[in-house]
Amino acid sequence: MTEILLRDDTRGVAILTMNAPERLNALSDAMLAALQDQIDALAEDRDTRVVILKGAGKAFCAGHDLKEMQAGRQALDGGKAYFADLFARCARVMTGLMRLPQPVIAAPHGIATAAGCQLVASCDLAVAAEGTRFGVNGVNIGLFCSTPMVALTRTIPRKHAFEMLTTGQFIETGRAEALGLINRAVPADMLDDAAWRLAETLAGKLSPALRVGKGLFYDQLEQGIDAAYAMAGAAMVENMMLSETEEGIGAFLEKRPPAWQA
Amino acid sequence: MTEILLRDDTRGVAILTMNAPERLNALSDAMLAALQDQIDALAEDRDTRVVILKGAGKAFCAGHDLKEMQAGRQALDGGKAYFADLFARCARVMTGLMRLPQPVIAAPHGIATAAGCQLVASCDLAVAAEGTRFGVNGVNIGLFCSTPMVALTRTIPRKHAFEMLTTGQFIETGRAEALGLINRAVPADMLDDAAWRLAETLAGKLSPALRVGKGLFYDQLEQGIDAAYAMAGAAMVENMMLSETEEGIGAFLEKRPPAWQA
Amino acid sequence: MTEILLRDDTRGVAILTMNAPERLNALSDAMLAALQDQIDALAEDRDTRVVILKGAGKAFCAGHDLKEMQAGRQALDGGKAYFADLFARCARVMTGLMRLPQPVIAAPHGIATAAGCQLVASCDLAVAAEGTRFGVNGVNIGLFCSTPMVALTRTIPRKHAFEMLTTGQFIETGRAEALGLINRAVPADMLDDAAWRLAETLAGKLSPALRVGKGLFYDQLEQGIDAAYAMAGAAMVENMMLSETEEGIGAFLEKRPPAWQA
Repeated sequence: MTEILLRDDTRGVAILTMNAPERLNALSDAMLAALQDQIDALAEDRDTRVVILKGAGKAFCAGHDLKEMQAGRQALDGGKAYFADLFARCARVMTGLMRLPQPVIAAPHGIATAAGCQLVASCDLAVAAEGTRFGVNGVNIGLFCSTPMVALTRTIPRKHAFEMLTTGQFIETGRAEALGLINRAVPADMLDDAAWRLAETLAGKLSPALRVGKGLFYDQLEQGIDAAYAMAGAAMVENMMLSETEEGIGAFLEKRPPAWQA
Repeated sequence: MTEILLRDDTRGVAILTMNAPERLNALSDAMLAALQDQIDALAEDRDTRVVILKGAGKAFCAGHDLKEMQAGRQALDGGKAYFADLFARCARVMTGLMRLPQPVIAAPHGIATAAGCQLVASCDLAVAAEGTRFGVNGVNIGLFCSTPMVALTRTIPRKHAFEMLTTGQFIETGRAEALGLINRAVPADMLDDAAWRLAETLAGKLSPALRVGKGLFYDQLEQGIDAAYAMAGAAMVENMMLSETEEGIGAFLEKRPPAWQA
Repeated sequence: MTEILLRDDTRGVAILTMNAPERLNALSDAMLAALQDQIDALAEDRDTRVVILKGAGKAFCAGHDLKEMQAGRQALDGGKAYFADLFARCARVMTGLMRLPQPVIAAPHGIATAAGCQLVASCDLAVAAEGTRFGVNGVNIGLFCSTPMVALTRTIPRKHAFEMLTTGQFIETGRAEALGLINRAVPADMLDDAAWRLAETLAGKLSPALRVGKGLFYDQLEQGIDAAYAMAGAAMVENMMLSETEEGIGAFLEKRPPAWQA
């Protein structure tokens, strides 16, 4: 049996590869469960410093598994309970990526549509293959991308988000970068390398400092400015009290590299 | 008597044309009342799928009716009660556009200033004639555009919003698009056509799906991420339970067009 | 003794110049205290209409004073209480700039890093010398820029903010403008002039109107749309009741300049 989600660990970087290429890596029940398992494992994993999320085959991810969803309608309630559970599980994966202690880099290529576009928006960073097409195109088949909207509207300006959601039209990488959906695009044959180099850059930072920072990134954005500063001030104190930070600042002042454990 | 707000209904698209060109379509008491009447009617109107808002004459809208406002000072309280009521009525129109079940497309040309710029920011989408000038220039006559600020600061980045509000300077369409105030600009003689084509695109989508989506768009942005996902998950379930959505997804899986009622 | 913070007042514009060039204008205890003193004074100062913040020497500001911070570790608690106090004082300066009744223009050059970048983000407007490098690079020495993050994430799109915070990489002025961190860049030898001209533009506006508007700018952004409009409507009424605003609108309607006190 082929695994639906591959994991490769190299020097503190975990590469998760969605591996259902024949279904364009659809977020089926099995795919969501596999992603949740990895998120749960990574949340406790002190050796992994950075996560990369990519897709096998022609596409990054084309969203939910529509066949599976239609089959869900066979239940006595027409699928209502199943759908409610499905969207709850999906949201748990999306927010789980935001809440991982490690930075998560999406590396989309081909297409990233509907919940696949939401995955890109939900990762902390995104480096895309040039020509990747992004869309929240559920509206074209009568299913407005309401849950992808949550991630998208927090990532790109609202008029452009509204247009994507209601026209179902795709944008390409140049536009996605200008709007803030991705950090940048690289030629397709350099995607793995570019994602890897970004991951290595982050893996070279002091891991507990990154954890403190990412742990606050989204939470403080939901607060008013005073509450956000109170949280951030406490985070700075916690960070300053790390012996590695004492060493990092000392090394900088002495113009030498820090003697940090690898 | 010429009507101050024209309405034309064609194939599910309502075109509202502000029609006081000699006053640059100022948001007088009469214009606000006419807009509110249409908003109230559209809120209950199941046949209209999309709304376009435009202006007759040289300008889209130049903001409040200053002559009328100065006249309001004749009251015993110097106009205080009138102004409070005026800004409440104006805010009701602006938020009313956001809360309509139909997507609203602004189609500005010429100038869109002060509350006219706020109208553009308050519509869900905006397609502008190239060369349209946008400004929140009340500060130039001693009246800071505080209510337009509410819409503007939720649409464009804050440093650029602050500059527009405090310098009173205008921006043109290229800048407005880059900042996210409009979706795009087209040559002036193609404005009606471009707005119409965008409206037709949206009118071709499944209307109840658009309603579910727009109904959540702004509300979920005011929530934290978990509350937003809870709302959006419920919206997805509601959307999935529509028989037209079952048909839309089924048609997609069978690679045929959906058999939706027009 | 050289003053650590210079102040020059000309025609209603206060120019604050951070003046510790040998330390790249680090936000030492002394610099923070001097900034707070000026903020406290400006808050009560009815003659000053606009504030410019700049730096003497090669850099605008390189962030906290790392030597002083390391020295703070000598305390019995390892510096914990000192650091908590330091970040609280720093946040008070940053939010103090936002809460000043006067618009504050940052005029960075050279480098603006860590809390120096936070200063730029915290000012209402920013005009930079071309080539200025911006970074939140504390992560490079093991101290994640958590407090700068509060200001940065409210100013630029989140994926780009996350990248700056976790890679520690710098961006230059073109990028800073595209992201919304600064309003624009000008050649270095025109920086003082450009900041001055912007200040003069704002100083020429009706000062109480600017106060009303800036007083609401950040607060209303923390509110939902209805609460924001309620606040803004009240501000508009307050603004309308100013006799200078009556004159400003009247002058506009009569196509003459307003007879405002200088």
